[in-house]
Amino acid sequence: MRVLVLGGDGFCGWPTSLHLSARGHDVIIIDNFARRAADLELGAESLTPIRSLPERVEAWRQCAGRRIPTLELDVARDYDGLEAAFRRLAPDAIIHFAEQRAAPYSMKSPRHKRYTVDNNVNASHAVLCAMVEACPDAHLVHLGTMGVYGYGKARGLRIPEGYVEATLHSGQAAARVEMLYPADPGSIYHMTKCLDQLLFAYYAKNDGLRITDLHQGIVWGTSTPETDLDERLINRFDYDGDYGTVLNRFLMQAAIGHPLTVHGVGGQTRAFIHIRDTVRCIELAALTPPGRGQRVRILNQMTECHRVRDLAALVSTMTGVPVQARDNPRREAAENDLDVENAGLLGLGLAPTRLSDGLMHEVMAVARRYAHRCNLERILCTSRWTRTPREHPAPGGRRAAAAE
Amino acid sequence: MRVLVLGGDGFCGWPTSLHLSARGHDVIIIDNFARRAADLELGAESLTPIRSLPERVEAWRQCAGRRIPTLELDVARDYDGLEAAFRRLAPDAIIHFAEQRAAPYSMKSPRHKRYTVDNNVNASHAVLCAMVEACPDAHLVHLGTMGVYGYGKARGLRIPEGYVEATLHSGQAAARVEMLYPADPGSIYHMTKCLDQLLFAYYAKNDGLRITDLHQGIVWGTSTPETDLDERLINRFDYDGDYGTVLNRFLMQAAIGHPLTVHGVGGQTRAFIHIRDTVRCIELAALTPPGRGQRVRILNQMTECHRVRDLAALVSTMTGVPVQARDNPRREAAENDLDVENAGLLGLGLAPTRLSDGLMHEVMAVARRYAHRCNLERILCTSRWTRTPREHPAPGGRRAAAAE
Repeated sequence: MRVLVLGGDGFCGWPTSLHLSARGHDVIIIDNFARRAADLELGAESLTPIRSLPERVEAWRQCAGRRIPTLELDVARDYDGLEAAFRRLAPDAIIHFAEQRAAPYSMKSPRHKRYTVDNNVNASHAVLCAMVEACPDAHLVHLGTMGVYGYGKARGLRIPEGYVEATLHSGQAAARVEMLYPADPGSIYHMTKCLDQLLFAYYAKNDGLRITDLHQGIVWGTSTPETDLDERLINRFDYDGDYGTVLNRFLMQAAIGHPLTVHGVGGQTRAFIHIRDTVRCIELAALTPPGRGQRVRILNQMTECHRVRDLAALVSTMTGVPVQARDNPRREAAENDLDVENAGLLGLGLAPTRLSDGLMHEVMAVARRYAHRCNLERILCTSRWTRTPREHPAPGGRRAAAAE
Repeated sequence: MRVLVLGGDGFCGWPTSLHLSARGHDVIIIDNFARRAADLELGAESLTPIRSLPERVEAWRQCAGRRIPTLELDVARDYDGLEAAFRRLAPDAIIHFAEQRAAPYSMKSPRHKRYTVDNNVNASHAVLCAMVEACPDAHLVHLGTMGVYGYGKARGLRIPEGYVEATLHSGQAAARVEMLYPADPGSIYHMTKCLDQLLFAYYAKNDGLRITDLHQGIVWGTSTPETDLDERLINRFDYDGDYGTVLNRFLMQAAIGHPLTVHGVGGQTRAFIHIRDTVRCIELAALTPPGRGQRVRILNQMTECHRVRDLAALVSTMTGVPVQARDNPRREAAENDLDVENAGLLGLGLAPTRLSDGLMHEVMAVARRYAHRCNLERILCTSRWTRTPREHPAPGGRRAAAAE
C-alpha cells in the first residue's frame, strides 16, 4: 500500500516509516520538524544522536535499497499544501502522528497549552477536510492515547476499546445505547485526543471517512530491528521531564546513577507498549480499514499494565539505583487500578513483547552508550498542572486515599 | 456586577449588552467584528440597518445615560491582549459569544469548516487560559447549543440539562456514573460546541474555574425593549440561507411574499427561544455562578419545541404565503421528536415568552419595514453537508422513515 506518515520524523513516526518500508509498502514522510524545534526550546536533545531526516532516508536507501520521499509541511497550517499532497500522492493509508504528544509540555504555560490545542485540533481537522476533498477512500490511522479514558475514577470496569454499552436514565425512562466511553483527560495534551475523537466520529458519520483511532499506552524502548541496522538510523530517546516517558526515564536514570524519580507514591497504574509493537500494530491496523460509512474503529494499542512504583522497584532491584519520591506535579488520583481490553490488535495478529524479555537491559545499554549527551538539569519534570495546586482536592484523590 | 461581553456586537451579544447595562451592570464589549466581515463576504447584510458599534454605544449613552466601553480584539488570536484585558478589567462575569455560530456557514467549504473549528476552539481555549492567569474567580457564561445532544436518534428520553445518569456495562460488570449526555453534533459548527464542552469540563476540574454553559435553542425575534428605544439601537436580523434562523426566515419570507422554504418534509423538531428571553436568561445565569471547583453548570436555554413544518403551516395560515418543500442540504433524520428539560432557568425565574404572544406579527412588521434591503439571491441555503450526499444513508434516516 501507499502510506503517508504525518510526523514521520518523530519518536514513533520514524521507526513506523522504516517498518512499513521494510515490509514493502511505499512510504512518504511529511513532517514540519516541530519536535526538533522543541528540543532547541527545551535545551534537551534526544539522548541518542539522531540524524537529519535527509541523512536518515539516505542511510535507509543504502541499507535497505528503498526510497522514502519526504515533504516538509506544517499539517496544521499549510492546508493547501496538504490537500495538494493528498491529491498528488493518492495514499491508501495516512498515519497521523502530527500532534504535540507530551502531557508535561502541554502544561508548561498558557503558550504551551494554546500551542498544543491549536496544533493538534487544527492538524487533525485539516487532515479530515483534505481527505474529504482529495482522497475520500483513504484510511486514516490516528495515534490516540489510553489517557482519553481517564485514570481518576475506579469504576471497577475493564476499559473497552473505545465504545461502551450504556443505559441512559431519565426519570422512569431508560434507553440502551452504544457510545464513546466517557472522556476524562488528565492534561491539555490528553484533552486534545478527546477532541480528536469527536472530530473523527463526526467525519465518519457525515462524510463516510474510514478511520482507525489507536489508543496507545505509554511507549517504552527506543530501537526496532530497522533502526538497529545502522547508527544513522537510530531512533530518538527522550529522557527529560517533558518528553521522556516513565519507564524509559527510569532506565536512563539507572544507567547514569540518578535516583529513580517517582511522582507521589507511584500508585499510578498505566498501560505500556514497546516501540517494536507500536510499529507492528500500525501496520496491522493500516492493512485492515473499516468500510466507508462505518463508525470509527477504536483499538487499544497496549500490551500490559503496570503500577509506576512497581516499575521503579523492578529497575532499582536490577541496578541498585535507589528510588526517590517527589511531589506529583499532576492533578490525578494517588492510586488507580487499570484493566484494559486489547483483543482487537491481538486478533489482528499482534504477538506482544513483554517487559520480562530482557529488553530493559537493551534500553539501558543504549542509555549508557550516550550518557555523555545527557543534560542533567533537564531530568526533572518542572511543569505544574495548576497555579494553585493545593487549593481544591485532586479528582478522586480523597477516595483513592481512603481505599488504601 | 462587572461584565465583559465577548462578541457583544452580534445578534445575541448586542441586546444582551443593552439588557445588562439597563439592569445596572457595568458592561464592556469586546468584539473583532467577524460577523460584519461575514456579511461582506456573503453579500447579505442584516435586513435591519445596524449601526457601527461606536454609533450604537453613543446612542445608548444618549438614551439610557449609561456608558458601554468597547475594545476591538480578536479573542482567538490576540491572547496577550485578552489576558491583559481580563487583568485590567477584573470582570465578575465573562459572557462568551465570540464564536462563529451558523451551521450552514460552517459547511460551505474546507475554508469555512477550518475557520469555524480554528476560531471557536481557540477562542474558548484562550478565554479559559486567560481566566486561569488573570481572573480565576470570574464566572464564565458560554453560549452553547441544543445541537450538542443531537436530533438523529429517537431515544425516547427527555433531554436532560447537560448531564445524564448512566449505567456502563462491561461483560458482567456494571458501573453507575453521571456523565455528559453523549454528543451527537449535526454540523461542524455544532461539533465545535461539543469540543467546548470538553474544554470547559477540563478547566473546571483542573483549575477550579466557575463555568455555566447555556445550551440554547434556535433564537427567533429581533428586538428587545432596549433595542426598541431608538432606531440606532436596532438589532441584527439575518434572513439569508447561512445565518438566518428558521422561524425568522419564515416570517421574513412571508413579509416579502416569498414561498416558505422547508427542507425535506420539515419533520425536524427543534427547541426555540425568543431573543427577549435569551437576554434575560443570560443575566439570570450570570448572577448565580457555581462555586470554585464545582463541575460546569449546564442549563438548557429554550422555552418550547416545534416541528419545522408546523411552524411553516402556522406562518402560511397567518399570511396566505405558500410553503415550498426543498431538498434538505443537511444530513439528518427526516423526522425527530424532542422533549427537553429546562427546569434550571425556570427555577431561576425565567417567565417564558411564547409563540402565541403575537410577537410573530412584530417580527413580520420589522421585516416589512426593511424588505427593500433584502438580497433575494441570498434567501436560499446553498451549503451542502457532503460532497456526495446520497452515497450513504443519513444517520437515523431509515429508522425515522420506517417509523412514519
